Amino acid sequence: MLGNTYAGQDCSIAGTLEVVGERWTLLVVRDALYGVQRFSDFAEHLDIPRAVLADRLRKLVEHGVLARVGPEGDTSRSAVGYELTEKGRDLWPVVHALAQWGRQHVSAGGPPRSFAHVTCETPLDPDGRCPTCQVTPPVEDVITMRPNVARRRADRVSTVLADPHRMLEPI
Amino acid sequence: MLGNTYAGQDCSIAGTLEVVGERWTLLVVRDALYGVQRFSDFAEHLDIPRAVLADRLRKLVEHGVLARVGPEGDTSRSAVGYELTEKGRDLWPVVHALAQWGRQHVSAGGPPRSFAHVTCETPLDPDGRCPTCQVTPPVEDVITMRPNVARRRADRVSTVLADPHRMLEPI
Repeated sequence: MLGNTYAGQDCSIAGTLEVVGERWTLLVVRDALYGVQRFSDFAEHLDIPRAVLADRLRKLVEHGVLARVGPEGDTSRSAVGYELTEKGRDLWPVVHALAQWGRQHVSAGGPPRSFAHVTCETPLDPDGRCPTCQVTPPVEDVITMRPNVARRRADRVSTVLADPHRMLEPI
Repeated sequence: MLGNTYAGQDCSIAGTLEVVGERWTLLVVRDALYGVQRFSDFAEHLDIPRAVLADRLRKLVEHGVLARVGPEGDTSRSAVGYELTEKGRDLWPVVHALAQWGRQHVSAGGPPRSFAHVTCETPLDPDGRCPTCQVTPPVEDVITMRPNVARRRADRVSTVLADPHRMLEPI
């Protein structure tokens, strides 16, 4: 009745939500866009049970959103990382739109994280475009920063993201 | 452990997902963007249990995404409709980004629904901009259509949406 699929909806919005609509999945994608690759980093930054994280990562790999990367032949968990595929990187506009709405309508603690074009450092407009260069930069040309925020979390990912960081650059 | 909030995430993406991340919620918003207002129309088009729909509508009203509308003093369920607030209409870029990704990466049955600028009928680009007019039209200036699709569903909303339809125009 409330399973994972939206059978009968025959709609590309529902189709997308079948892939990324499950709880925590879009935050896993968010972290992958930041450049998080290791299981332990996702686990620490998201602060979720490892079984839930393993399930979400497995499904994202199955759907071709993430790909497993790691030294050939070594499949131990610690050696394996996860990288967004092109299909996965295409989720950037979804994640940016969610961030934009939250920035506008949900009061967060402190100044929100912002995104800027790497070549000119102009903040992206609400549609993800660079108003200076008049282009929509691909996610790898975006830097993210969060100024003057108290460091509330001490995990490795939060520490890296306290400074300006280029999206997709491995953390 | 897997409740409704993403406590500790301190992030505008997580903040947005606390409002719209629950299962079915974004499809309720999608339908409201199409112009669906009545409880019975949401129920029929989404094909979900009325208790689930009532819960999602109630939460969206609580969050100020939807507002109840209806004849003054008449609060019976049949008389009440739901309309997106400005905050709710601001979710259009999220819904459009989800549709765009699905169109590109999830095989749907038949040609996908498309969105065009009402003044020039040019299909919106992946970022939701009109390439002819070089603007990002607000959702009320968007028409949606789905050409040559077999009518698989016979509910009232699906019937209206089989023809070109202006977004937000009450169904």
